[in-house]
Amino acid sequence: MKAETLITHLIERGETVATAESLTAGLVCATLTEVPGSSAVVRGGLIVYATDLKASLAGVDADLLATHGAVHPEVAAQLAAGARDRCGATWGLGLTGVAGPAGQDGVAPGTVHVGLAGPAVLTVRTLGLSGDRASVRAGAVGGAFALLGEHLA
Amino acid sequence: MKAETLITHLIERGETVATAESLTAGLVCATLTEVPGSSAVVRGGLIVYATDLKASLAGVDADLLATHGAVHPEVAAQLAAGARDRCGATWGLGLTGVAGPAGQDGVAPGTVHVGLAGPAVLTVRTLGLSGDRASVRAGAVGGAFALLGEHLA
Repeated sequence: MKAETLITHLIERGETVATAESLTAGLVCATLTEVPGSSAVVRGGLIVYATDLKASLAGVDADLLATHGAVHPEVAAQLAAGARDRCGATWGLGLTGVAGPAGQDGVAPGTVHVGLAGPAVLTVRTLGLSGDRASVRAGAVGGAFALLGEHLA
Repeated sequence: MKAETLITHLIERGETVATAESLTAGLVCATLTEVPGSSAVVRGGLIVYATDLKASLAGVDADLLATHGAVHPEVAAQLAAGARDRCGATWGLGLTGVAGPAGQDGVAPGTVHVGLAGPAVLTVRTLGLSGDRASVRAGAVGGAFALLGEHLA
């Protein structure tokens, strides 16, 4: 789903969105706010590129990060919940993954976990993306938009 | 200065950067992290699109926001300092402005304040940018890169 369509759905529903982004580092929120009028429904977000910021800014369990590393489905779920909570939004999107070119914590480039937290949902979708760093990041944005779109449409 | 050059300078200096972004909503940090290896020096950031998040996430004085609105040089300075502090970075960049197409708080589209906070600096540069929403946001990213670059080169 396109950013413009997501914004239209959110406006119609009177709901808001926030993000907590690792590998995309703000690209999801920046793309949403390309749409004029998005300020009515986009609250903001947390860019948690460094692992320790996932805990300090978004409230991800530090033990989880120490045990499983930053690229794990449960981290994406907690990022989504943290974005929703810390930014006071109806919906929270959380993204963690490996953009490449190098792997991270034994996880291959292209592995991306997208979490969505909402009024009655907390879910994670794992993507296996191919291509270079820019392609993986763009695919991660698309995956986040698709997941949110399915819950708004 | 290009993102790649900024990352190289930061690596050479052993320093880090974080952002607090309003009108760009993550685009500064997303552009910096297009560079492979940027994770060594980019900590993360705060996307403070909604005015109240400028206070709650980045620590901007709520009275300042109530008195002068969100688009003010002092807000950019406090965003930069907040990014640096909350994300534990050597350098903090703070951006607030009007991307358009509509004005905000009586401020015309294209007005952008960029703040930079560092070990011995707290400065703000005001830009008057022309063009559409995408052009203003891209110009704001360029202005932030230029300001940081002058202090790293």
